[in-house]
Amino acid sequence: MGNVFGEVFKISTWGESHGPAVGVVIDGCPPRLPITVEEIQAELDRRRPGQSDIVTPRKEADQVEILSGVFEGLTTGTPISLLVRNADHRSSAYDEMKDKFRPSHADFTYQSKYGIRDHRGGGRSSARETIGRVAAGALAKKLLKGVEVRAFITRIQDIAMPEAALAEFPSAEAVEATPVRCPHPETAAAMIERIKAVRSDGDSVGGVIECRVRGLPAGLGEPVFDRLEADLAKAMLSLPATKGFEVGSGFGGTLLKGSEHNDRFENRDGQVRTASNRSGGVQGGISNGEELVFRVAFKPTATILQKQATVDRDGQPTELMGKGRHDPCVVPRAVPIVEAMAALVLVDHWMRQQAQNGSFPQ
Amino acid sequence: MGNVFGEVFKISTWGESHGPAVGVVIDGCPPRLPITVEEIQAELDRRRPGQSDIVTPRKEADQVEILSGVFEGLTTGTPISLLVRNADHRSSAYDEMKDKFRPSHADFTYQSKYGIRDHRGGGRSSARETIGRVAAGALAKKLLKGVEVRAFITRIQDIAMPEAALAEFPSAEAVEATPVRCPHPETAAAMIERIKAVRSDGDSVGGVIECRVRGLPAGLGEPVFDRLEADLAKAMLSLPATKGFEVGSGFGGTLLKGSEHNDRFENRDGQVRTASNRSGGVQGGISNGEELVFRVAFKPTATILQKQATVDRDGQPTELMGKGRHDPCVVPRAVPIVEAMAALVLVDHWMRQQAQNGSFPQ
Amino acid sequence: MGNVFGEVFKISTWGESHGPAVGVVIDGCPPRLPITVEEIQAELDRRRPGQSDIVTPRKEADQVEILSGVFEGLTTGTPISLLVRNADHRSSAYDEMKDKFRPSHADFTYQSKYGIRDHRGGGRSSARETIGRVAAGALAKKLLKGVEVRAFITRIQDIAMPEAALAEFPSAEAVEATPVRCPHPETAAAMIERIKAVRSDGDSVGGVIECRVRGLPAGLGEPVFDRLEADLAKAMLSLPATKGFEVGSGFGGTLLKGSEHNDRFENRDGQVRTASNRSGGVQGGISNGEELVFRVAFKPTATILQKQATVDRDGQPTELMGKGRHDPCVVPRAVPIVEAMAALVLVDHWMRQQAQNGSFPQ
Amino acid sequence: MGNVFGEVFKISTWGESHGPAVGVVIDGCPPRLPITVEEIQAELDRRRPGQSDIVTPRKEADQVEILSGVFEGLTTGTPISLLVRNADHRSSAYDEMKDKFRPSHADFTYQSKYGIRDHRGGGRSSARETIGRVAAGALAKKLLKGVEVRAFITRIQDIAMPEAALAEFPSAEAVEATPVRCPHPETAAAMIERIKAVRSDGDSVGGVIECRVRGLPAGLGEPVFDRLEADLAKAMLSLPATKGFEVGSGFGGTLLKGSEHNDRFENRDGQVRTASNRSGGVQGGISNGEELVFRVAFKPTATILQKQATVDRDGQPTELMGKGRHDPCVVPRAVPIVEAMAALVLVDHWMRQQAQNGSFPQ
Repeated sequence: MGNVFGEVFKISTWGESHGPAVGVVIDGCPPRLPITVEEIQAELDRRRPGQSDIVTPRKEADQVEILSGVFEGLTTGTPISLLVRNADHRSSAYDEMKDKFRPSHADFTYQSKYGIRDHRGGGRSSARETIGRVAAGALAKKLLKGVEVRAFITRIQDIAMPEAALAEFPSAEAVEATPVRCPHPETAAAMIERIKAVRSDGDSVGGVIECRVRGLPAGLGEPVFDRLEADLAKAMLSLPATKGFEVGSGFGGTLLKGSEHNDRFENRDGQVRTASNRSGGVQGGISNGEELVFRVAFKPTATILQKQATVDRDGQPTELMGKGRHDPCVVPRAVPIVEAMAALVLVDHWMRQQAQNGSFPQ
Repeated sequence: MGNVFGEVFKISTWGESHGPAVGVVIDGCPPRLPITVEEIQAELDRRRPGQSDIVTPRKEADQVEILSGVFEGLTTGTPISLLVRNADHRSSAYDEMKDKFRPSHADFTYQSKYGIRDHRGGGRSSARETIGRVAAGALAKKLLKGVEVRAFITRIQDIAMPEAALAEFPSAEAVEATPVRCPHPETAAAMIERIKAVRSDGDSVGGVIECRVRGLPAGLGEPVFDRLEADLAKAMLSLPATKGFEVGSGFGGTLLKGSEHNDRFENRDGQVRTASNRSGGVQGGISNGEELVFRVAFKPTATILQKQATVDRDGQPTELMGKGRHDPCVVPRAVPIVEAMAALVLVDHWMRQQAQNGSFPQ
Repeated sequence: MGNVFGEVFKISTWGESHGPAVGVVIDGCPPRLPITVEEIQAELDRRRPGQSDIVTPRKEADQVEILSGVFEGLTTGTPISLLVRNADHRSSAYDEMKDKFRPSHADFTYQSKYGIRDHRGGGRSSARETIGRVAAGALAKKLLKGVEVRAFITRIQDIAMPEAALAEFPSAEAVEATPVRCPHPETAAAMIERIKAVRSDGDSVGGVIECRVRGLPAGLGEPVFDRLEADLAKAMLSLPATKGFEVGSGFGGTLLKGSEHNDRFENRDGQVRTASNRSGGVQGGISNGEELVFRVAFKPTATILQKQATVDRDGQPTELMGKGRHDPCVVPRAVPIVEAMAALVLVDHWMRQQAQNGSFPQ
Repeated sequence: MGNVFGEVFKISTWGESHGPAVGVVIDGCPPRLPITVEEIQAELDRRRPGQSDIVTPRKEADQVEILSGVFEGLTTGTPISLLVRNADHRSSAYDEMKDKFRPSHADFTYQSKYGIRDHRGGGRSSARETIGRVAAGALAKKLLKGVEVRAFITRIQDIAMPEAALAEFPSAEAVEATPVRCPHPETAAAMIERIKAVRSDGDSVGGVIECRVRGLPAGLGEPVFDRLEADLAKAMLSLPATKGFEVGSGFGGTLLKGSEHNDRFENRDGQVRTASNRSGGVQGGISNGEELVFRVAFKPTATILQKQATVDRDGQPTELMGKGRHDPCVVPRAVPIVEAMAALVLVDHWMRQQAQNGSFPQ
């Protein structure tokens, strides 16, 4: 339960980290969209382990197969099934986890909820589950013609991009220029250094991803419950390791007075625009044609290579020593995942908006 | 579209601020729950205008009627329809809004999306829409026997409760002791003063609400998409004027290292518990039996009694002067709304969890 | 649970027969549709009790109120709440039903399922519940510009229209010409006579409604599960007293061989058309542009004015004597209900089809 | 769109007949259910081509793989992904269908709806799509402990089981005793003869499947829209080649008077039971503890090995000669499919019923 996302562009993800495969079924993708396996693979490669020296060195090719819904290079309107085989894992590395609950992981809660769990590598709670999301997101991005969805890291622990550097909409090149996916080179360098430092301590760090969307028309969002920012918030908080979401001025905006916070409307080049964008591109739950801006907080990776106190399945105190090849910081690999989820929400809302426009054909 | 919330405990809200009435239909409420109109009214009275001297002085009785689904004091398992008649409003006060877009309101986006809008008092985008949510929430709270859902204000603009005062789970009495619903008396006094000050300037302020839930069993939450915190985030961001959500350590947690952030498990009184609660009561999207803790950011009220630049429906620059009786700060009245939405999410998840437990009766 | 219908054009009905009111909330109605209270009332008047001498003589005005979602005569895209107050009923007439289960009614099953029931007049299981459906259907019909949805009675008990009379698409006038809503005058006369005869015996009869839809474009229907005929079947079997559904050739079609049953394609006036229509307007779950044709079986009314053996709530054998003013045949009043449900399904599918067509605006 | 079925026990099927594979993802299966690949395979073998001399001689092994959601022989509560690779098909056999529309197939409607279609073997509209349903149904059946879901053929064209033979609940052995899955040996023999006869003419026949469910508790069904029979009707009409559905007395019941049709309640062995079962096990949309009885009409297979008039994609008249290895009658292979869909509906309703029962754990 809870593994289907979207109202009209629906995705169903499945798979455990150490099962045979992970994947996704997309139902509701409009027909006649040109798509290649390479386009999907390109997004998966951005979230793949082993892509740089600041992420987990696990080697996983994560090759995607298209099993249905695409015919002669075009979507057919039928469900699109995408599958990625898991590499042959050393499951024995996880034997200790069978009986001990890793702190701040999902071991205890899965066991409490289901009375059973695939303990190997976190099973379903592994970030490997996001492969299906990213694969589906590749199609969503392709559908959003003329729209740029750009996520990037603004902060790792306390190392943040300077405010001024946020003025510009960052290019994809600037984001991908460094493995840390922060478009500001000096900050990126410091972030990388920090990540390497905590890794050598067997520790971990988190940070903040900002996502901006340019080229979005006004009118997307379905109040009162399915406001655009509400569905984005849900999408982001559904990602592993996320602890917060804010849109536009966010928590910081609560420090302003209304007279300071309001976005005045103005006529710019014949368009109704706002002079500032503290709203973050949404008003009343509906996009207003300005840049969509939101941020997501990622906690430090729970897996650390240090000895930690915990309990076992019988509730007895014990210790657990993290081992294996883990990400000291998941945030860089989360950048394409955030983009994928944003694209999925936007496509779903675009389709819902389309459903209620237009007249019955006579 | 977008006005139905919940998977099994479903609510459909309806109504505009200056139409004949607002209301809600609840589908999926378990049968045989004792409920009285007074219990629902009590929650509505907490969000009612005119309840204190720091909120809008509009007098609205907001009397709720139960139209279906309750028989001889018990729910019957059939849809519960709740209705609140609107007072007879001076709609003419809103004539100016017919053609001018109020800054940071939903006027422009509703017009863009639907090509039409009920401009009187914000129509559907008015906070009056939350009446249905609060009424439904009263039933949800009643269902959550033994669970306390407590929201309260921790910050108004820059006036925040001292960290130490957050150690305790605040009592309902402490929260309701002052009209600002901050359980720390000194902070509450300063908040009230600030709200009165900005009101006299025709300005407004926002703030932060924290919500804690005590008595929740482990096991609620449906990963991967319907994680408990994901559905809470959506519920909160679906409220008017919200700009951010965080659970547990939230954005602040990104400043810690994994070794500092992880919640060690321990055996306390024979129970598996965590020594700290930076997770905020959820791990892997599922409640872990600890206190659920989340925070919501509310921007300053967009309506201010000052002259503001804007454009009209033809895109021509103009000015708009706010008038009428508005809240200089919506946060105190939002406290029961946050509780209602939290209760709705929790009941829905409890029912979903129940659906997948147990064996087929033989 | 189970009181919300539709994927994008969603209706939530509520209300018991002897509660204060019944109604419906429509979420997802496209904006800017002109609609008046009179147009909705006109459909309700077709299902109203007391409209002729072959239906129940109960006098209920069933006046509808529009409570939201319509502004200055146009829908606004927000939820439309429609309410009909119940007349002041003689609930005491139902005292006997409090403890005795009426045969072939829902008394026993509601009691089994919910452990409680509003026994007065059948409560939620009363056909009065369909008022909300018919009211919502009035909007759906209005949206289906250029489409004619025409239901009519083809058979009452064993009195059936001659096959030849089915060749033509019946006009609304022909259907409404007699209270029995059979467009063939001689058959209608015989049906009326039969209904009066069974009424004088305190007995009841059922029959078959055929529904045809003209002007529907090809392309509606969402296989594999939400085939157009599947959603129509569900809509029809969700109506009280229905026992069967068939589309096109239906059960009779199973007597033919494939070579006899197949609908050959031909080019008629430049259009791809089928020479016959045993498919009933759907192929592979999608409309093909031909007339949509389906039939619904209604059992004889369970309420009869005769003494029947039954049991009470303690399982003890007892007798029950039907009394009051009931329909000896519900089928004539079901005609507008079948049309309403058909229109609701068609609008929902049209909107879903629209959602997946078109390109993202650049 | 339209490829997800179920409210809490949700299945998403995918796959085309001539793509790499077909499959299903099940979300919401309760945890800790023992299941083996062999149990799923056994159901698939019942729908497999080539299983007898009256079905298509195509040889397809249809071996199922479990890709997720099962760990050490038990379901884990996470999505269960099941996959069946397609055999290497002679797609060239379908070249003619690329441009010509087969009569009474979905070629024309898929082309109209999506503007594209995988023409090979019917693509998504192929009955091969039901593999995912049957695989998911195997789990649903396993969940329904103590419940027997038994479908069987009562009629092929005009060859019907004698009424008296329907008195008994047929055993699985009796149904599986002949390839035609009619539990009455003499009728079965005549049916087989008929099927062979039409096959030798290159023609086809249809028929009627009855499905009975024994051991079902009272209380399943969610009126008003999700009545048990409404969801069954939808499930059955979502199957390829179905044209009708009836529950209990069905269309035939419309010939009776109320006094003849009503099922009197009686006390049998301390249980509230009905003396007759014209209701078919449901009253007011809710199961009443009696045998659930419904019937489904299947039209004659559209594919016939005869020359038929049709049009091509340009609307030009042409002819099409059916060829290849097809089923002269799909009904025998549809028996396990009907059972699977029934089981899926029942499990979903059982889980929904469970969701609203019980009290919050304190």
